[in-house]
Amino acid sequence: MANSKFEYVKEFETDDRLPPSNWIVVRIDGCHFHQFSVDHAFEKPNDENALNLMNACAVSMLEQFPDIVFAYGVSDEYSFVLKETSQFYQRRASKILSLTVSYFTAVYVMKWKEFFPHKDLKRPPFFDGRVVCYPRAKIIRDYLSWRQVDSGHINNQYNTCFWMLVKSGKTEREAQEMLKGMLSKDKNELLFQQFGANYDKLPAMFRKGSCVYRDKVEETVKFDLTGNPVKRIRKKVVLGHFDIVGPNFWREHPEILEED
Amino acid sequence: MANSKFEYVKEFETDDRLPPSNWIVVRIDGCHFHQFSVDHAFEKPNDENALNLMNACAVSMLEQFPDIVFAYGVSDEYSFVLKETSQFYQRRASKILSLTVSYFTAVYVMKWKEFFPHKDLKRPPFFDGRVVCYPRAKIIRDYLSWRQVDSGHINNQYNTCFWMLVKSGKTEREAQEMLKGMLSKDKNELLFQQFGANYDKLPAMFRKGSCVYRDKVEETVKFDLTGNPVKRIRKKVVLGHFDIVGPNFWREHPEILEED
Amino acid sequence: MANSKFEYVKEFETDDRLPPSNWIVVRIDGCHFHQFSVDHAFEKPNDENALNLMNACAVSMLEQFPDIVFAYGVSDEYSFVLKETSQFYQRRASKILSLTVSYFTAVYVMKWKEFFPHKDLKRPPFFDGRVVCYPRAKIIRDYLSWRQVDSGHINNQYNTCFWMLVKSGKTEREAQEMLKGMLSKDKNELLFQQFGANYDKLPAMFRKGSCVYRDKVEETVKFDLTGNPVKRIRKKVVLGHFDIVGPNFWREHPEILEED
Amino acid sequence: MANSKFEYVKEFETDDRLPPSNWIVVRIDGCHFHQFSVDHAFEKPNDENALNLMNACAVSMLEQFPDIVFAYGVSDEYSFVLKETSQFYQRRASKILSLTVSYFTAVYVMKWKEFFPHKDLKRPPFFDGRVVCYPRAKIIRDYLSWRQVDSGHINNQYNTCFWMLVKSGKTEREAQEMLKGMLSKDKNELLFQQFGANYDKLPAMFRKGSCVYRDKVEETVKFDLTGNPVKRIRKKVVLGHFDIVGPNFWREHPEILEED
Repeated sequence: MANSKFEYVKEFETDDRLPPSNWIVVRIDGCHFHQFSVDHAFEKPNDENALNLMNACAVSMLEQFPDIVFAYGVSDEYSFVLKETSQFYQRRASKILSLTVSYFTAVYVMKWKEFFPHKDLKRPPFFDGRVVCYPRAKIIRDYLSWRQVDSGHINNQYNTCFWMLVKSGKTEREAQEMLKGMLSKDKNELLFQQFGANYDKLPAMFRKGSCVYRDKVEETVKFDLTGNPVKRIRKKVVLGHFDIVGPNFWREHPEILEED
Repeated sequence: MANSKFEYVKEFETDDRLPPSNWIVVRIDGCHFHQFSVDHAFEKPNDENALNLMNACAVSMLEQFPDIVFAYGVSDEYSFVLKETSQFYQRRASKILSLTVSYFTAVYVMKWKEFFPHKDLKRPPFFDGRVVCYPRAKIIRDYLSWRQVDSGHINNQYNTCFWMLVKSGKTEREAQEMLKGMLSKDKNELLFQQFGANYDKLPAMFRKGSCVYRDKVEETVKFDLTGNPVKRIRKKVVLGHFDIVGPNFWREHPEILEED
Repeated sequence: MANSKFEYVKEFETDDRLPPSNWIVVRIDGCHFHQFSVDHAFEKPNDENALNLMNACAVSMLEQFPDIVFAYGVSDEYSFVLKETSQFYQRRASKILSLTVSYFTAVYVMKWKEFFPHKDLKRPPFFDGRVVCYPRAKIIRDYLSWRQVDSGHINNQYNTCFWMLVKSGKTEREAQEMLKGMLSKDKNELLFQQFGANYDKLPAMFRKGSCVYRDKVEETVKFDLTGNPVKRIRKKVVLGHFDIVGPNFWREHPEILEED
Repeated sequence: MANSKFEYVKEFETDDRLPPSNWIVVRIDGCHFHQFSVDHAFEKPNDENALNLMNACAVSMLEQFPDIVFAYGVSDEYSFVLKETSQFYQRRASKILSLTVSYFTAVYVMKWKEFFPHKDLKRPPFFDGRVVCYPRAKIIRDYLSWRQVDSGHINNQYNTCFWMLVKSGKTEREAQEMLKGMLSKDKNELLFQQFGANYDKLPAMFRKGSCVYRDKVEETVKFDLTGNPVKRIRKKVVLGHFDIVGPNFWREHPEILEED
């Protein structure tokens, strides 16, 4: 098929391939999710169903895109790490960004009813995203620590206190004032003293966020003639709630961030 | 809330603001939609419901994002033009790209049942996208002409011939061979001679694609005491199937691509 | 010649072609020229020889690089405008930036003795540069106005007052204090009242900066048999000191910023 | 000093800071140096004075810019490696590129007479440059190996054969034909058989190119009362011609490419 004289406009497209040998992170964030969570009456500070839906989307992502080696999510955000050698769409940033965000969104809407069987979607949930390159595995670990500490722990502890105070009768403004500048250990103390709540006993998903990755699992494929199970090891996408700041998780899963 | 020592990883994020005074085009494309259309038994070469669904998503886009001044769609792609003065998310490319693609995707899944009441979604439909800057209104017109001529007319005429041949008993390979290098007017002749079909009588939506924009419409707000209608003019998102290569449409809607 | 296994490192180079249909500005600035002007005892606030040397370099630039259509200089900076259709080095930003800055520098050192016959270069003069794209001729005019007004007039008037005060016995700090927040017309008044100087009578090169461009000039090629001169028109690089904020210069030279 | 209404044009400047934790290479190349070497009657294939001049410029560069940790040069090109933690001009690519190229050029012209006392510069020598980021020390070593093998050894061996053939009476075309596709060891054989030349006995500077870096040197500062020398160790910019593909040089100078 011959092309028209208008084709010159293609030259305005830029080459946005990400540099080789860099780990690629796509971070997805709910857009106007504060309002979205109000409209759909999400439990505060953590709605278990909403988090499970986010996690289900993340699991789908790893099943769909083999170059994603790890995902970490907290609240309405999820970070996806593509391995440094990935040649996915020749590492073109806008391809990677747009189709991962789009896939995540599609799954979110399609699975909504599974997690909220009694709630209709009142408006389209949508996400923004960004792509960032990290030159070394060590820095990717710092990136993931950043999300777990800053976005996960610090935010979640604050929100836990905030909503306990609000539910106990404070106005949102009063709760905000009380928590201003309060240290981490004092927030734990507040939870314990005023509400008898032990922050460390909250579900790990609330405190730690969620990790999605591939792990070796043993499966029984069939039973042999003598009735003994025949097993095989295969890689499977799994979900867990771990500390990813310390070295333990990474020591147990060295292949995830292995560098070329 | 104090931040952790890991926050330095933020410095790896790049400033991706698009240059001022440029028109911004976001073009969205169905990802693996050849397979998707097979899986959902789309009519070939044009499935009216599928096109109507794409158009409904585009209308939603203009209703949601006021900076989009025009959209043009054909087949499984849609181009959205943001005005050159737009300050949407400070013109950050990845914000603009990700959230428009995400919103489009969410609406596509949510509205699916409206257009395909008897078909279930078998897999997540998803889209990739790109953002391109164009420095002058004249070049935006060439961009839109490019999509209407190259992606719209040339492709559609080819596909119309191809599928008529296939439906008449040719194999896909035979149809491909017959059409190789055939001129536009000969394709029209083929349709007419072999199938009695007049290409120019096909629905405008198939031949021209779809335009979405805001237009002034007159509405009756109420009736006055004497029973006469009280009207007002307001801007409304409308859909049509026009030639956008020639000057007529643009002469009638000069405000769409007005430059600062 | 076969290549080695190390050639993969080439893939880290990025495609830095500037977008088509944009005017390209390269602005060159003297690096540490405050110190450089002290070391070489430049006259303050304006050293005529130093400005003439800068201008000679700019003229060389237009003679060397045909895609530069206009240059504007003031103090130790010079802006070079490449036409919007330029295909110079396929519009690769780093090629354009590096070789123009390098050429300018080489000419500056080579021509030094011509303008400073009695002064030796004590240290290498060097320049930094940047490349900026402008989508329309109208904005290029605003760019040039910006340099003439902000860098040219406002700076030069300030410096003229500052150095007159310093030469009359004030310390640099006192001069600075006196001029803080002083309006433009009051600075003119100060020059007139205290020093009998009329700012508008200063050389145009100091007040307006310098413009370099190609102009049609009439030349006598030879004399015919009857002794009459045979003339021809040719384009020649010329230098002048004009107001480029108002419309007059541009009305007289419409071809310089003509758009495709 | 207040600013004018034209200042908005500054917004068209882009943020071109290079990503953190990447090694930065600036590679400078002579522009039209084939012609330049003809105009200045450079010895072929290697002009010792011209190479010494390039090396002197590189030494000046390391003395001027402390963030350059290593430089490698061959023929009319030089690569400068900035350490990965460099904050030089906030890592802005165009600042780094323009001022290093400019400084190199200035020194080249200023030192010309030192190396060519009997030749005048006939035209401005100028250089283009590019900036490339490399995420790991290992890849920087591959980059330097690439320059030494591809640009250094392969080119130089070819040129040595080519010019020996030309000087012995072949036309340039004949020499080219003879060398087409010839293996490395056959080129050595040709040099030995036809010209009695042992490639490995050529000066190391021709075969290996030049390395510039900082090394610890012991200096006698003064003599004490008993006449014994008082020494101290200090860092000094040094020049050498080493194999930088193998591990030896890097084992002896581990601090050069040490990663944070």
